[in-house]
Amino acid sequence: MSSGYFADIKPIRYEGPESDNPLAFRWYDKDRIVLGKRMEDHLRFAVCYWHSFVWTGLDPFGGETFLRPWFTGGNPMELAVRKAEAAFDFLSRLGVPYYCFHDRDVAPEGATPRESLSNFRHMVEHLAAHQQRTGVKLLWGTANLFSHRRYMAGAATNPDPEVFAMAATQVKAAIDATLQLGGENYVLWGGREGYETLLNTDLRQELDQLGRFLNLVVDYKHRIGFTGTILLEPKPREPTKHQYDFDVATVYGFLKRYGLEKEVKVNIEANHATLSGHSFEHEIALAQALGIFGSLDMNRGDPQLGWDTDQFPNNLPETAIALYSVLQGGGFTTGGLNFDAKVRRQSIDPTDLFHGHVGAMDLCARALLVAARMIEDDRLAKAVRERYAGWRTSFGRDALEGRLSLEALSERVLSRNEDVTPVSGRQEALENLVNRYI
Amino acid sequence: MSSGYFADIKPIRYEGPESDNPLAFRWYDKDRIVLGKRMEDHLRFAVCYWHSFVWTGLDPFGGETFLRPWFTGGNPMELAVRKAEAAFDFLSRLGVPYYCFHDRDVAPEGATPRESLSNFRHMVEHLAAHQQRTGVKLLWGTANLFSHRRYMAGAATNPDPEVFAMAATQVKAAIDATLQLGGENYVLWGGREGYETLLNTDLRQELDQLGRFLNLVVDYKHRIGFTGTILLEPKPREPTKHQYDFDVATVYGFLKRYGLEKEVKVNIEANHATLSGHSFEHEIALAQALGIFGSLDMNRGDPQLGWDTDQFPNNLPETAIALYSVLQGGGFTTGGLNFDAKVRRQSIDPTDLFHGHVGAMDLCARALLVAARMIEDDRLAKAVRERYAGWRTSFGRDALEGRLSLEALSERVLSRNEDVTPVSGRQEALENLVNRYI
Amino acid sequence: MSSGYFADIKPIRYEGPESDNPLAFRWYDKDRIVLGKRMEDHLRFAVCYWHSFVWTGLDPFGGETFLRPWFTGGNPMELAVRKAEAAFDFLSRLGVPYYCFHDRDVAPEGATPRESLSNFRHMVEHLAAHQQRTGVKLLWGTANLFSHRRYMAGAATNPDPEVFAMAATQVKAAIDATLQLGGENYVLWGGREGYETLLNTDLRQELDQLGRFLNLVVDYKHRIGFTGTILLEPKPREPTKHQYDFDVATVYGFLKRYGLEKEVKVNIEANHATLSGHSFEHEIALAQALGIFGSLDMNRGDPQLGWDTDQFPNNLPETAIALYSVLQGGGFTTGGLNFDAKVRRQSIDPTDLFHGHVGAMDLCARALLVAARMIEDDRLAKAVRERYAGWRTSFGRDALEGRLSLEALSERVLSRNEDVTPVSGRQEALENLVNRYI
Amino acid sequence: MSSGYFADIKPIRYEGPESDNPLAFRWYDKDRIVLGKRMEDHLRFAVCYWHSFVWTGLDPFGGETFLRPWFTGGNPMELAVRKAEAAFDFLSRLGVPYYCFHDRDVAPEGATPRESLSNFRHMVEHLAAHQQRTGVKLLWGTANLFSHRRYMAGAATNPDPEVFAMAATQVKAAIDATLQLGGENYVLWGGREGYETLLNTDLRQELDQLGRFLNLVVDYKHRIGFTGTILLEPKPREPTKHQYDFDVATVYGFLKRYGLEKEVKVNIEANHATLSGHSFEHEIALAQALGIFGSLDMNRGDPQLGWDTDQFPNNLPETAIALYSVLQGGGFTTGGLNFDAKVRRQSIDPTDLFHGHVGAMDLCARALLVAARMIEDDRLAKAVRERYAGWRTSFGRDALEGRLSLEALSERVLSRNEDVTPVSGRQEALENLVNRYI
Ligand SMILES: [Co+2]
Ligand SMILES: [Co+2]
Ligand SMILES: [Co+2]
Ligand SMILES: [Co+2]
Ligand SMILES: [Co+2]
Ligand SMILES: [Co+2]
Ligand SMILES: [Co+2]
Ligand SMILES: [Co+2]
Repeated sequence: MSSGYFADIKPIRYEGPESDNPLAFRWYDKDRIVLGKRMEDHLRFAVCYWHSFVWTGLDPFGGETFLRPWFTGGNPMELAVRKAEAAFDFLSRLGVPYYCFHDRDVAPEGATPRESLSNFRHMVEHLAAHQQRTGVKLLWGTANLFSHRRYMAGAATNPDPEVFAMAATQVKAAIDATLQLGGENYVLWGGREGYETLLNTDLRQELDQLGRFLNLVVDYKHRIGFTGTILLEPKPREPTKHQYDFDVATVYGFLKRYGLEKEVKVNIEANHATLSGHSFEHEIALAQALGIFGSLDMNRGDPQLGWDTDQFPNNLPETAIALYSVLQGGGFTTGGLNFDAKVRRQSIDPTDLFHGHVGAMDLCARALLVAARMIEDDRLAKAVRERYAGWRTSFGRDALEGRLSLEALSERVLSRNEDVTPVSGRQEALENLVNRYI
Repeated sequence: MSSGYFADIKPIRYEGPESDNPLAFRWYDKDRIVLGKRMEDHLRFAVCYWHSFVWTGLDPFGGETFLRPWFTGGNPMELAVRKAEAAFDFLSRLGVPYYCFHDRDVAPEGATPRESLSNFRHMVEHLAAHQQRTGVKLLWGTANLFSHRRYMAGAATNPDPEVFAMAATQVKAAIDATLQLGGENYVLWGGREGYETLLNTDLRQELDQLGRFLNLVVDYKHRIGFTGTILLEPKPREPTKHQYDFDVATVYGFLKRYGLEKEVKVNIEANHATLSGHSFEHEIALAQALGIFGSLDMNRGDPQLGWDTDQFPNNLPETAIALYSVLQGGGFTTGGLNFDAKVRRQSIDPTDLFHGHVGAMDLCARALLVAARMIEDDRLAKAVRERYAGWRTSFGRDALEGRLSLEALSERVLSRNEDVTPVSGRQEALENLVNRYI
Repeated sequence: MSSGYFADIKPIRYEGPESDNPLAFRWYDKDRIVLGKRMEDHLRFAVCYWHSFVWTGLDPFGGETFLRPWFTGGNPMELAVRKAEAAFDFLSRLGVPYYCFHDRDVAPEGATPRESLSNFRHMVEHLAAHQQRTGVKLLWGTANLFSHRRYMAGAATNPDPEVFAMAATQVKAAIDATLQLGGENYVLWGGREGYETLLNTDLRQELDQLGRFLNLVVDYKHRIGFTGTILLEPKPREPTKHQYDFDVATVYGFLKRYGLEKEVKVNIEANHATLSGHSFEHEIALAQALGIFGSLDMNRGDPQLGWDTDQFPNNLPETAIALYSVLQGGGFTTGGLNFDAKVRRQSIDPTDLFHGHVGAMDLCARALLVAARMIEDDRLAKAVRERYAGWRTSFGRDALEGRLSLEALSERVLSRNEDVTPVSGRQEALENLVNRYI
Repeated sequence: MSSGYFADIKPIRYEGPESDNPLAFRWYDKDRIVLGKRMEDHLRFAVCYWHSFVWTGLDPFGGETFLRPWFTGGNPMELAVRKAEAAFDFLSRLGVPYYCFHDRDVAPEGATPRESLSNFRHMVEHLAAHQQRTGVKLLWGTANLFSHRRYMAGAATNPDPEVFAMAATQVKAAIDATLQLGGENYVLWGGREGYETLLNTDLRQELDQLGRFLNLVVDYKHRIGFTGTILLEPKPREPTKHQYDFDVATVYGFLKRYGLEKEVKVNIEANHATLSGHSFEHEIALAQALGIFGSLDMNRGDPQLGWDTDQFPNNLPETAIALYSVLQGGGFTTGGLNFDAKVRRQSIDPTDLFHGHVGAMDLCARALLVAARMIEDDRLAKAVRERYAGWRTSFGRDALEGRLSLEALSERVLSRNEDVTPVSGRQEALENLVNRYI
């Protein structure tokens, strides 16, 4: 049942730092214990179905480059079956524990809603069998509510409530499938949940629609006994001019507004973080501070490009800092590290798909080791604790907890009548300290 | 008591569109009735003290250019008195109804907290007298918690609670002054309330500090009977790497988190909006949708520059769209149009200060007339209402108000078993319609 | 021979500013004389074939939205014929004097190079007949060297010289067709002439390839007697990480390096200007200063988006400033105003194509009237002349023309031994002056 | 003669990777031979005078934070003397071979041009003595033509030719001093050589002025026998809206236009590269391809900030790639690695200045070792050579060298009549290969 397409690739193994084999892991030793846990259990890697098995290499200025054998030469359902075989062949050879998919990645849109649903359910059976056979698990499922023209003006936020109902139909089926396949999370990325121009948009109405939709999803999840986490994936814009799930802070406010901050968490993508004007670690740290940290899409952008390039991570210190943030917050529960990444459209060989994933997994594993050293050494965290020591004095606690009014604080200052002495923020020393762990 | 510096400038008058006088208003006819209200009452213009009377022309690469007579030639308090005279001379000649200030703009920092407070209180008496004499009113007061080195690591969010207390001291005095001077709002802009590096920052701790501080401010306001509005001014970054009041959506989430969403509104600056990746009208419309719209800083940025240039507005269609958004939300209550704008550092003549403000006020007045035509004509708003008509059917209302579960929506779609028909978003037609009002 | 698709649209007429007809011109009165020339001859409007007749509405996150009747229901050549009929029907109804096309827009790629050429030549005959019939002329032709996967790593700059030869084949045929159809310019936009990563790129080699290619084009043009202008279209990036024709300044250096600065000019696109970090008027003014100004693509971007949105222009003051720059440089010779613009993918009605173009043409016409007033009034230009008056003194001329050495200048300063007195740059006054012409 | 300010800091020594001393080098072992050359001779580190000894910590939103002892407590010349002592004390303790300065960094502006010159000459004697005493050398000198208000509208590009003469006076003296002090390069960074608005600017005139100025500098250099390199430092904007030396490509075109491409090279700053929309390695590689590579300013920006933060480098893979580019081009001749970097304004302790420089030097040294492995291993370069192998066949050479016309190339393709076969660009594999050297 293995696909010929990847037949030349031997299963990827851990061979250690000295290995000269470009298709071996040098750092990702899945059973190695780090901070008391297996590497695999820390990292919880997932491969995404869409970029690796569905995307043709098309960009806004050019067409297909990849010519995968499952793109042509059969009817849509036959091709979907062939694609699933190739996908699980890839996942097995790579040795990755998880995958993720949208409904439309795995099964073609049908001529009617019922046919679409039937196609999807049929393919979910195939996926179940592949999971069973290979041991690969589902990190999260999701529904594609942005590619079809019916969603061009939004799914949940469409001006037409019939489109809202279409979206509900897809999401219901996708949650059902996620439950059936043992998925550990369910993700919503609202690619069209935003606007192109305010001139034709009722912002408040659309926010209320989105709030309602998400409440319906949460209600449904509980009703059917899905115990995974519901995740929103923030992104500031693209394809829209403005997307309502702009960044972690925006999502938090949205969840609070619609009473969902205890029900829904975020799936943070590195590339979306930087497109929204934040560092990846900022978004992670903020989500943790706000109690809505869920999962990560590890794919990075290009610092000079203004669109979502979804590249595999390749910078060790940046990745280490991101994972240090994750570890500081206690690591993942149901979440994991998904590669919502695509090989460049010039990387047209089957082997390129392996290079992309092997390099990224290996980089993350190495970054985990760096981050673990930061945690164990504790010097970084200690510097922060000491900087805020004043807030743990009785005066600090009184001030923070509201036992001192504005007048009381003012009186304190005026009666002491002297200025405070600033202390160094020590940024360079701390940046140097980070480099000691690299 | 009028300053010699502006003595060559005659009071600015409305002379009508045909006037060839560059220091006359061609559109700002303050008593003209627009949509049932005087222009002056719609626009509620304010001049800021800091950029026009305090800034020396200094930028990160060069020093003073302006050589205002109140910059040198006396002790700090004498200069402050002279500056206030010049400022009110300017405000009177310009014919603007409001001004805004920070505590440190009007009075110098003293050697001790008490001396600083005493300096400030003394100057507030001067301001009161000038207001009385000229009829110019205070739109809002605020405290400068970012220029002094004690605040280099934050004011309310400083790692040292003694700095928090210093900030409380300044803010208390500034609110007292605002109340005394009849100010209609009190603004907080947290120029250092953010971080330079996460490596030395406890994000959650700092957010809690800021939440506490703002709660103290709100409590104090009520206690002393200040009935003006408390406003936060969002800005994404600069001087910090990341500021906690990033944009309107972030501020909303923050207010919800700390129970302040009914107490505090936003002062939206055009330049800060665009630096955060949003259009100005987006921030206005979002604040209205979320119920936290307060006031505006009308100064724009440069679309190619990545820092806060604080330029006077000069683009008619952009300004008209912004004011259309304001009018759609019902206009200002306590807020107004502040020019947090500075003349370019090469604009070193006294007359340049007038050119900047006269041009900006006139542009806003003309934009108000455009926006009023949009409101009266109603074609733009009607296009939006019609686009969402489906949500006012019984099905639409049931869906929006939660009377249809995810399953019920799915059943509806599967039983109808047909796709929806997308309709045109008509963006180009609506953009053309806007240009009919220009 | 007119296409049913646009049959509901009456030919667009000039009806004057008071017209309430959204599909009439209110400002574009083609025979109106402005600065001694017909409006049509000033503006030389062109519609592009690709966005209006070829693009399906696809974006990186979604598929076709437009469902044009010439997209399906025939073999590729039948569809190409049908598309050409629709296109010229549109052009005629719009009343636009020019169009532009890529080879692959008008004729499908064949199974072999010869078949591609034959398809193209066949369709060129159709175009010739349509031009003859309708009077619509060709502003410029070009070849698409970026969509086919053979060009994924570049055309002229491909690591494989056989691809260079393929590109040469297409360009030769496209220049031949441009000559045959009376085209007034030939454009090269190097969508893949750049790199994705320096790791696999020989920058110097690729620049030399591009220099060679452009020299071959220029040689060929002269050999066949094509008297139109060869134009490069700068764009900084997208689809590439870095494109060699980054902006006007970069193109100028490239032309100088390969001896082409007298042979080749630039086609400046507003959206590409802003993506490269410049204002549109900067790129126009710089091209004029360097003697390489050729033609314009009038489509704008969105100031908050980091990719090429190719929107119709809709901001009057911005467009007026751009046209003022054009007029200051003497206007177009062979160039014109092409709309390399696409209606938004939600604008799915045939009428939307008209709204986009009618609004844009009308805006440009109105902006031309504004720019003409600036020229006639001369106050803007006079302010600049006066600012540099010192350079027309004998000292200024000596300094500029090199008759004073560094030592001589230094001696002059030291012997006078006094500082200079800076004068105001008057930016606000000049910005206000601009608004007098709006 | 050593300054008390740094007295607590022991001279920085190489202690090896295992050292736990934050003020020791772990990688920078200056006499270690790498690729046949001493580390110190490869890296040629320089410290800049302005950020480390002149800058007060001021930013656009706040004042001095550093309180260096040489900022107050004496007349300007006394303070200049004290500052020079502190600077050379720092340089000696750090063990850096070079420094760089602007004229106004080392000596105060006087009341007249002659007094300014006299101050400067006096301080140059001090510098000479310090160099003699400590062995620290001058990498480059330069003149500050941007801070004084006389230059607010440009120096060489000022609308007033008297300002041009003032600039010439400063530059002459600064070149004289550079020669006297054995400086190996002379740099021009045109902080005000650009414009704030095109409305008051004659672009062509200003470019001609700048071309003339640079020619005068080159003439003077030859006349006095200065054999160092003249360097321009590109920067796209800030403080201006647009600076004429936007990026390397722009500078190249400028040099070609004014006949200077053999006389002048570039000093590329990492932060300026990224602000202009390029990667640092792009600017290095391009300068090498164009034959104008000179020297580097190693300070980085923040990828989320739109202004020049001038931070010390701290990312190992990024720095390694930059140095790999340098080594590929043959390394430095007269250039070096200057840290035009400033400690953050919160880093107020003397020790922070050491942390910044020690960490940066150590990072660069470690990156040099990485880059040397890339060079020695040759796999990266080999992949590039092989990718372009077709251009070294006889067909490839004929095509590149112009022996095949457009027609000949077209005939070749049409007679073969088959498509080319694209090959993978292998980006992910190459990115992984880079990580093997880290
Ligand atoms: Co993404
Ligand atoms: Co993602
Ligand atoms: Co601002
Ligand atoms: Co403001
Ligand atoms: Co474009
Ligand atoms: Co274009
Ligand atoms: Co810099
Ligand atoms: Co520099």
